[in-house]
Order: sequence, then structure tokens, then C-alpha cells
Amino acid sequence: MLSAPRRLLVLAEGRSDDPHYGKTGRGVIRYRPDDVVAVLDSQSSETELLGYPLVRSVAEALAYEPTAALVGVATAGGRFPPAWRELLKECIAAGLDIENGLHEFIGDDPDLAVLARTHGVELRDLRKAPPGLDIPSGANLEHGATTILTVGSDCAIGKMTVALELDREVRRRGIHSEFVPTGQTGIAIAGWGISVDAVVSDFIAGAAERLVLEGVDRGGEVLFVEGQGSVLHPAYSGVTMGLIHGSAPHAYVLCHQAGQRFVEEDERFPIPPLAELVDLHERLSLLARPAKVHAVALNTRLVEDEAEARRAVEALAAETGLPTDDPVRFGAGRLVDALEPLFGRA
Amino acid sequence: MLSAPRRLLVLAEGRSDDPHYGKTGRGVIRYRPDDVVAVLDSQSSETELLGYPLVRSVAEALAYEPTAALVGVATAGGRFPPAWRELLKECIAAGLDIENGLHEFIGDDPDLAVLARTHGVELRDLRKAPPGLDIPSGANLEHGATTILTVGSDCAIGKMTVALELDREVRRRGIHSEFVPTGQTGIAIAGWGISVDAVVSDFIAGAAERLVLEGVDRGGEVLFVEGQGSVLHPAYSGVTMGLIHGSAPHAYVLCHQAGQRFVEEDERFPIPPLAELVDLHERLSLLARPAKVHAVALNTRLVEDEAEARRAVEALAAETGLPTDDPVRFGAGRLVDALEPLFGRA
Repeated sequence: MLSAPRRLLVLAEGRSDDPHYGKTGRGVIRYRPDDVVAVLDSQSSETELLGYPLVRSVAEALAYEPTAALVGVATAGGRFPPAWRELLKECIAAGLDIENGLHEFIGDDPDLAVLARTHGVELRDLRKAPPGLDIPSGANLEHGATTILTVGSDCAIGKMTVALELDREVRRRGIHSEFVPTGQTGIAIAGWGISVDAVVSDFIAGAAERLVLEGVDRGGEVLFVEGQGSVLHPAYSGVTMGLIHGSAPHAYVLCHQAGQRFVEEDERFPIPPLAELVDLHERLSLLARPAKVHAVALNTRLVEDEAEARRAVEALAAETGLPTDDPVRFGAGRLVDALEPLFGRA
Repeated sequence: MLSAPRRLLVLAEGRSDDPHYGKTGRGVIRYRPDDVVAVLDSQSSETELLGYPLVRSVAEALAYEPTAALVGVATAGGRFPPAWRELLKECIAAGLDIENGLHEFIGDDPDLAVLARTHGVELRDLRKAPPGLDIPSGANLEHGATTILTVGSDCAIGKMTVALELDREVRRRGIHSEFVPTGQTGIAIAGWGISVDAVVSDFIAGAAERLVLEGVDRGGEVLFVEGQGSVLHPAYSGVTMGLIHGSAPHAYVLCHQAGQRFVEEDERFPIPPLAELVDLHERLSLLARPAKVHAVALNTRLVEDEAEARRAVEALAAETGLPTDDPVRFGAGRLVDALEPLFGRA
């Protein structure tokens, strides 16, 4: 779907210092480090970001010989900030392909499309739904792979990262695992996938089923499906629910950010006790495939002190009665240990 | 949105004897009886349906002077049976507007669009999403109307009908109630609405919020939001969930069909005890607006004996501890009595 050797300029305009809104760019930087050559943010005064040159203009970026520019922001609702169109035009004029993860499709913009043809570059809309989607066929219940879905107490707390870390650890153990991408960043990282939040809502579950079957076709004996949103989230719960039923997981990994008490930090939306959230997901499982939460992934990114992070992990393990860890900070071993008894039993 | 005085030919081709797949046509017949002049089904041997002439061809239908043809079927996934295109061409050639509730848009079909222009008729795709949708703004929590959502144990068991019957009974009591249409049949009946299953999945909740606000703009003090799918349904639960959070109801009415044990009659999907389903909906409520199930609507259509139907209602009332009735068979009074204490308190 995406050509293999890329030299990406990550466009993080105005957002390079914001871990929440810059998650697409940061995800690619972390899991495809060799594909990235530079990051662009005209408003930053830094000179590097995570070891990459941080440039202020397309002209400056060309020194690093990028072949494509990646739209590295994810704004609420997926709209394009107007100033971005100018930036994209500059990239196209400089001969860069564009990879875009927003709802607004650059391929549908006549100006940009004409400009792209003129300069012989490709506009890739990662969120564009493929043709021929439908409701699930039931094949999600009939393949032989063990399917594990990451779910969580909010969006943008690390469900994709947890799926990627678990996938990497399972591969390290010699088992053919596949990361199943369901959103723009995952697609940008893995080079395939469907952005389930961009499909017609009747076909969310059908798109999720198709992704799982593609993971099986790719040889996956174990599939880690990238979760989206949260069943608690006022805007995105529909996508989450369709993904839960369409991917038909055998098990969940519940993700939470240490110390977070409200969805989107909005006090009107208090996150219930995690043990309740475990129970809620188990009760929401596809009736034909009751699934349990087998592990909890705690994101301790905001907890500076390491001992304190370990205490937060242990406290949540005690609260939920489930194997708990921060797979980014402390490694994915403990969580994979908890999941491994499920492998090969589907 | 839809012009007021219509003379509809309901197209029920091959489906006029099937209450499940013919629900769009039957819904309009029941709740806009004066708008319908005839029903077409070339495969039926009957001469009437619910008091309307049942015709076998467009030519035969013209005696009843229709102004528009309504696609009265709802197929799984919303695709058009191929033979239907010929039927639609005949209707257009006969000067009829088309109202279409399927996912496949007739306005996007170049042949039909050209034919429609030639004959000066309008092609109305009821499921086509309006432009400018987004995620919810939070205004769904700030209006003054009492919002009630119908939810259920399966799709196609009467959630729309229950909302329409409750709306009618509340109006009868002198309160300005609005039925809020969320699917093609509701839109065909009420003349406005958004088919929430046809919007981009990120915007399900935003579309539901917009509908509720339009209900308020129409003067509704009480809103009955047409439910879609079921949180138990393997294909449609995402839509259901987005509708629950986006419409932000103050209360639910839980709908169930008497005697039904499996979702879509598929034994892999056993419906849990209704008391559990009540609890599940209450726990799925928007965190900012916890809502309870205040009444249960039991569809006893398949229970022939009236005394037996009454016993089924009483048994479910005992099981759930909630006011229960079949509003179609026995009137909506008892259910509205249970909801009325909520009115004016939003």
C-alpha cells in the first residue's frame, strides 16, 4: 500500500512540542525511525526533536533529501488548519509526496491535485476508506489467529503504542504476530490498514473484520488490533464499539494513563474505577465471543519518578487483580506473559 | 426538506409480504397514511396491502396519480438489488420523483441522474449525510428539552415505532413533543432528519447532537429520538453507541420483541436477560449525563392471543421491575405515564 523506502519529512507545524496532537508524527518516529529524516515546525525554536533535525521551512528541509511529507498532526474532528494548505503546496512544489491522515482528503482538493500532477508527486490519504466495505460476514469468528484488542479509558493515551510494543515482544519470542492498524498513525507506521473512524458508520464492524482477516492473510498467528477512542468517550465511542464487535477479540488489554481522572480532562466526564471499566468491556463483548481483559497497560509517561511509576503500576494491579505494567517504560514482557497462554488456542 | 403534499407509490418489490424487510414502506403507511396512494410488488398475487391498492407495474400504478416513488425495502448493508434499477428507470420515465433510503445513492448514478433531468423529477437520497458534520460541541448537554431515546435488544424490532407512538401520545396530552428521525424510514415519515448509519463514523455522535438540537429548534419540549441497531448487534452496535452518547438522553425506553432469544435469530448471539440489558445501557450512558431505563416496550406482534400478550407484558414488568407495555397493541398511555415526571425538568 505504501512504497517501502521512504525518507519522511514529518510536518508538525505549531505542534512539535505537544505529545497529544503530534501523535501521528511521533508514532512514526518511534516505530519507523529509519524512515524519518527531519521534522518541520516553523514556530519552534528548537533545533532537534527526538534526535531528528527540526527545521523551520521546506527549503531548509531539502538539505535532508526527503521524498515525502507526512501530515503529523491530528486535530479534533480531523479538519485542516487553513495555513497548512500553503505548507502542503510548498512541499508538493518541492517534489515531495504527501501522506495525510486527516479527514479532509488532499486528493479531493482540485488545486493540490493539479499541482501534484504537475510535479509528479503522489497524494496519499491514509484515512480514505477503501471501496467495497460491508457489514461483517462472520469470518471474524472463523479464522485461527488469536486476536487481542487494546481498549482504554480515553483516546490518545497509548492504545496504538501498547499494541505495537506487545507485537514487537511477541515477535521477539519467535511467534508470528501482526500489528493491525486501524487509524492514520498505525497505517503510516505499518504501511497498510483502514482508518475505521473514516468509514461509513454502518460498516465500522465490517472494516474491522476485514482488517483482522488481512492480518491473518499476512501470516499472523497472533493479532494485536490497534484500539480507537474509548467506550467512555462522548465523540468516539461509536467507533470503539464497532471495532470491539467487528474485530471479535479473544482478549482485551485495557490501557489507562496514570493519574487521569476525566475523559479529555473534562470534569463532566469522570472515568469510573478501572475495575468497573474492566467489567464493562467484558459485558460489551460480542455475544458470540465473550472476551476478558487479560492485562492492564498503564501509561506512566507523566510520572517522572521511576519508583513512583512502579508504585502506580502495582496499585493498579492490586485494584484490578490483573497483570499490569507500563510496556513502554518497563518492557512488554510481563503483559505478554499474561497473554501467551491464549496463543494457538483460537 | 421533503415537500409536504406527496402522493407516494411505495415500491415493495418482492417484499410486500415481509414485515422485516418492508419496514420503510410500512412505516410510512402507518404514520403518514394520507401520503400513500398505492404499493407496487410485481411478485405479489394480492390486490391490496393495509388498505392500499397493490399494483404489479408502474403503468398500473399511474391510475392512482402518484407524484413520487418510495424505495420501501431495507436490505442488509443497504445495497440495491440489480433488478430495482430498471424499476426506478420506469418510475422516473413516468415522471415520479424518487425517495431512496438505501446506502447506494441514486443521485450518484449517472444514468438515473440524466434520466431524472430529462423527465424533470427529483432524486432524494434520504440516507445521504449532510455537509459540515463534526464531533459533538457539548450543546447536547445545554438545551432545555427532555430527551428520550429508544434502545433495544436487536434491530428491526420497533424502536422507531415506539418513539412515534410515544410522541403521538405526548402530543395528545398537549405537550410539544418531537419525533427525532435517525434513519431512512423516520426521515421518510417526518420529512427531516439524518440517517446516522450513513455518516462518517467519527461523526455519529455529532450527527445525533445536531438532530437533537434541530428537535429543540422545532419547538420540542420533549424529544423522542429514534433508536438504531442494538449495543448487542454484531454489525450495528457502533451506530447505536454513537447515538446513545451524541443524543445524550435523559432516559431510555428499552424495546424488545416478545419471545425473541437471539440477535437476528442467530443462535451464536444469545440475548442476555432483559434486566442485564437495562443495567448495561445505564452503565453505557454518557458520563456527563447518567440515564436510566424508565420503561420497557414489548413488541407482541407475533403473539396472536391477546391474553397471552398481556401475560408476556406483565412477566417482563415483573422481571425488570419497570413499567412495561406494548404501545402499538395496548396504547402508549402506560409508558408515557412513566416518562411524564421527567418532562420540564431538563
